[in-house]
Amino acid sequence: MGNMLVEQQPLQALCTEILAKRLERSEAEIIADSLVFSDLYGVHSHGVTKLKASLDRLDNKLIENKTDLQIERDNNAVALLNANNGWGQVASVRAMDLCIEKSKTFNASIVGVKNSNHFGIGRYYTMKAAKEGMIGFAFTNASNYMVPFGAKTPSMGANALSISVPTKNDYIITLDMSTSNVARGKIAIAARDGKSIPEGWAITVDGKNTTDPEEAMRGYLLPLGAKGSGLAIMLDILSGVLTGSNFGANIPSQFEGNEPQNLGHLFVAMKIESFMDINKFYDRVEVKIDETISTEPLKGFDRVYMPGEQSYETYQKYSQQGIPLQKVVVEELITLAKSYEVDTIFIEELLSTIGGEI
Amino acid sequence: MGNMLVEQQPLQALCTEILAKRLERSEAEIIADSLVFSDLYGVHSHGVTKLKASLDRLDNKLIENKTDLQIERDNNAVALLNANNGWGQVASVRAMDLCIEKSKTFNASIVGVKNSNHFGIGRYYTMKAAKEGMIGFAFTNASNYMVPFGAKTPSMGANALSISVPTKNDYIITLDMSTSNVARGKIAIAARDGKSIPEGWAITVDGKNTTDPEEAMRGYLLPLGAKGSGLAIMLDILSGVLTGSNFGANIPSQFEGNEPQNLGHLFVAMKIESFMDINKFYDRVEVKIDETISTEPLKGFDRVYMPGEQSYETYQKYSQQGIPLQKVVVEELITLAKSYEVDTIFIEELLSTIGGEI
Repeated sequence: MGNMLVEQQPLQALCTEILAKRLERSEAEIIADSLVFSDLYGVHSHGVTKLKASLDRLDNKLIENKTDLQIERDNNAVALLNANNGWGQVASVRAMDLCIEKSKTFNASIVGVKNSNHFGIGRYYTMKAAKEGMIGFAFTNASNYMVPFGAKTPSMGANALSISVPTKNDYIITLDMSTSNVARGKIAIAARDGKSIPEGWAITVDGKNTTDPEEAMRGYLLPLGAKGSGLAIMLDILSGVLTGSNFGANIPSQFEGNEPQNLGHLFVAMKIESFMDINKFYDRVEVKIDETISTEPLKGFDRVYMPGEQSYETYQKYSQQGIPLQKVVVEELITLAKSYEVDTIFIEELLSTIGGEI
Repeated sequence: MGNMLVEQQPLQALCTEILAKRLERSEAEIIADSLVFSDLYGVHSHGVTKLKASLDRLDNKLIENKTDLQIERDNNAVALLNANNGWGQVASVRAMDLCIEKSKTFNASIVGVKNSNHFGIGRYYTMKAAKEGMIGFAFTNASNYMVPFGAKTPSMGANALSISVPTKNDYIITLDMSTSNVARGKIAIAARDGKSIPEGWAITVDGKNTTDPEEAMRGYLLPLGAKGSGLAIMLDILSGVLTGSNFGANIPSQFEGNEPQNLGHLFVAMKIESFMDINKFYDRVEVKIDETISTEPLKGFDRVYMPGEQSYETYQKYSQQGIPLQKVVVEELITLAKSYEVDTIFIEELLSTIGGEI
């Protein structure tokens, strides 16, 4: 089960071509970009490995092939969009674009999305706001896999939030976190690799602690303590209850469910210039970065990192050297491309640039 | 070291009178209300026990006796206020009031406060927004007591956030959390009571784990893992860097420092009616509450609670039966009242209603 080094451009082209067999090209491009973006940042759980599951949902008519986004409400600094069971990535890009536009006028704004699907990696949207000189927020709810604090059975997802803050450099300070101790994708990867997991990540269906990733995958995620649980409930209210989407225990599984997920998201953008001169802000941010990363590390740590700093380093490395993907992931993509009758030139192009097993 | 049952009204009256010896009565009333509110919700670490420390800061000319709040910027949905080293509670009440007013016009708004002081308990402000049919957020930074994840020395506070969501009933769903594993106030209480603390709450000045609350008080708070640390950094940027206040390692101690803290806060309010009919929202919130509290509990838990539900039960109980305060806290208050030459009728009134040691 080796890793292969895959170049960004042919990987993204292949994913785009696969998606474009079913979706309008403009939507296929957004989704492929978002998936490869996730892999570039080292978040493989939200990367191209997710493509097949989404297309399976499309084949099963659980998600539309066109994101027919409608503005349901639009009042000054707030708007509510209906994704009409289209693609979460497409709806979310447009929602954040609207949020940014609104914040250019009102300085701050909030845009909700209802009736959506998994939006992939949250920072894909919040970093868009940061590039416009704004602080961006993205909240989403998710499949019903996580127990509230003190519970034995789930009644919500590992609902997630992302916050991005621009700096004067290319690096964008980014928090991108679920409210579980770890993402379910990490347990899935441990299961695939036959590795045990630490206690505290998940409980079994009987409410027992487990270090077996297979049992954990059949069981439920544990929240990041009482605080993580409370935050997850709030994120469910903000992204699900408030937008008119499904929430909590009513969200069907992304993989096993047989009805639309009807997820909800909420985006916030605030214009930094409405608080202070942006260059003054950047100077202050540099002080914050410097004081944080120069904090004396504990034994066992090389140094202290800013949120999203390590994944940005990963992004720089993978952009140059290629993205390490499990061989099985690459093979699945190629099988998918063949079954979708993608022009073989895109497969050949990918294979010709693969750096071999590492 | 017994507890005494103290009635809300005479306790608040006494605190108001003490404060009114130095502050304008209107400001004294807000601060006393906020402190007693905290005790009513069982958050004694932010309650009347904090009064003396704040007045000591006033005596030492580290905080102004008048909150001369100025609007520095006001642009549509965003405003920035300068508290001019006045009282955090007074500045924050007015900031959230402005936020609510702005959201009546723009549906969402964000108000920052710079050059402020400790604002007490965050839900005091977010619950105000909830009572206006809005979802309220409050972010603040705090004294430099917490280490970032993987660090041995502090470079930020246990920065805190509160979110409140109204329901159709008196109970308001409220998350009110710091980003440390526990509030420093809890360690102080353990130290006072001579009890040990669990590992993971704090490290010593040498970066070692400790269960000794005295060592922990001399040492530093640990964040709620890497995620809590990342969130704390983001809250510092939002409330400190963005507002033009102090941030991170530059915030002096509230108790030992000899210069103004210059804390920052950020408030957000979003009008629920801009997303959906408020009664429909309330119905959906009831579903969320019901599904959460009826989730099957783990062994050792009586049931699952909503955020702020247990403290709301505490509030109901203490409002009726009185607030249990440590005898030493009551005695300190009375000493304070005498030294401030408060009319003895307020002391007598408090003492006459005290329910004795419990």
